[in-house]
Amino acid sequence: MPTSSPQPAFVLIRPQMGENIGAAARGMWNFGLDRMRVVAPRDGWPNSKAVAMASGAGRLLDDAQLVQTTAEAVSDCHWVLATTARPRGLTKTVLTPERAMTEARDRIAAGERVAIMFGPERAGMENDDIARANAIVSVPVNPDFASLNLAQCVLLMAYEWRRQTAEIIHEQTEAAGDWASQVEIEALASHYEDRLETARFFFPDTKAEGMKTNLRNLWSRMPLTRADVQILHGILRQMVRWKERDD
Amino acid sequence: MPTSSPQPAFVLIRPQMGENIGAAARGMWNFGLDRMRVVAPRDGWPNSKAVAMASGAGRLLDDAQLVQTTAEAVSDCHWVLATTARPRGLTKTVLTPERAMTEARDRIAAGERVAIMFGPERAGMENDDIARANAIVSVPVNPDFASLNLAQCVLLMAYEWRRQTAEIIHEQTEAAGDWASQVEIEALASHYEDRLETARFFFPDTKAEGMKTNLRNLWSRMPLTRADVQILHGILRQMVRWKERDD
Repeated sequence: MPTSSPQPAFVLIRPQMGENIGAAARGMWNFGLDRMRVVAPRDGWPNSKAVAMASGAGRLLDDAQLVQTTAEAVSDCHWVLATTARPRGLTKTVLTPERAMTEARDRIAAGERVAIMFGPERAGMENDDIARANAIVSVPVNPDFASLNLAQCVLLMAYEWRRQTAEIIHEQTEAAGDWASQVEIEALASHYEDRLETARFFFPDTKAEGMKTNLRNLWSRMPLTRADVQILHGILRQMVRWKERDD
Repeated sequence: MPTSSPQPAFVLIRPQMGENIGAAARGMWNFGLDRMRVVAPRDGWPNSKAVAMASGAGRLLDDAQLVQTTAEAVSDCHWVLATTARPRGLTKTVLTPERAMTEARDRIAAGERVAIMFGPERAGMENDDIARANAIVSVPVNPDFASLNLAQCVLLMAYEWRRQTAEIIHEQTEAAGDWASQVEIEALASHYEDRLETARFFFPDTKAEGMKTNLRNLWSRMPLTRADVQILHGILRQMVRWKERDD
């Protein structure tokens, strides 16, 4: 059994193509999930095409639980989801992937076991399988074109799981080198202001103060590294040298 | 030109396999996006393998803008994102897909044009391309296994776009038939209470009130349709008939 962190089991029901099983394993492991259960795969088990496609995620197939019925696959679970379009004629709550994975996260944190079922490629899940689910997960696809395949559906569910559980930093700027300090920005601003004063850039006098304020604001709202500041000093020094040679 | 709703352009930079271009088109159209730009595809344009793979999303390829350089592809855009891993040696803001698409949505709503660039399959994007981007988008994959291909990356970005822009109902239960009204639930509760009273279910007397409350609570917290209520009435009536036959 895997020893990874608490997570839902992904249950592939009667999958057909080995390639799709392998691609599903990759999709899971891309987002750190490694508990797969496989119900009655059409081409038997193990499946060499699945192994070939899984490549770096092959361990998921080695560790996968093979069972013959959907009932066995989910028997130990407290909350079971079916990924499918809305079924006709069955009363069932339909959740977005986001809502489903939020609830899965909370239930797993409370000690429950959660399974997410994926139907076979062409036929989709049968009502008999769907009736075992506590709720349905439906990806909000374009109603004019809903063609998600098994591996894509697994990928999106795994992505949502990670989005709801990983500590994600949504915005981060890593400098290649150190950020410039305020002292360095101040020195840069003064350097430009002095030289541009000499070059009579701040013209006419009535606008000079406003122009200086705008220039200072420009420097301070740029996220500049120390290397950036050196480049900007260098540009100005070179222009001054060039002017002096021309004289 | 497509006449669809405001949306980012997805820019495929020097894509190699036609199948991947077609799969990218499918991924986009699954979530309602249809503005593709293609920069210098390796195997020329149009690409019959791309068309074959795109099937129902073939219109995106017909309408795609073909250009020879990344500069041309994004020249009319105000905000450009590069989907790639964190580059070494370039200072750049890195966003999650979620944050990127939230900002893309807001900028597009304010009238800006946004492009999202995807690199070629094996090599990934070159620093020369990345340097044109205002920010980087990085999918929060498992650091031990980051193997998203071009079409998967497009799919995830398109999914996030739809998640940030579609009016999505996160939880919905559609009844197959009408929901039971309070009057019908009340009649059901009374039916069971009366019959079970006769059958001496509420025993011992000291616990009878608590048992009745629990049973009423059970009915009222179930989301029952009118058909469900009829089934529950029928079960009880049948048990009573069976008892009467036995007498």
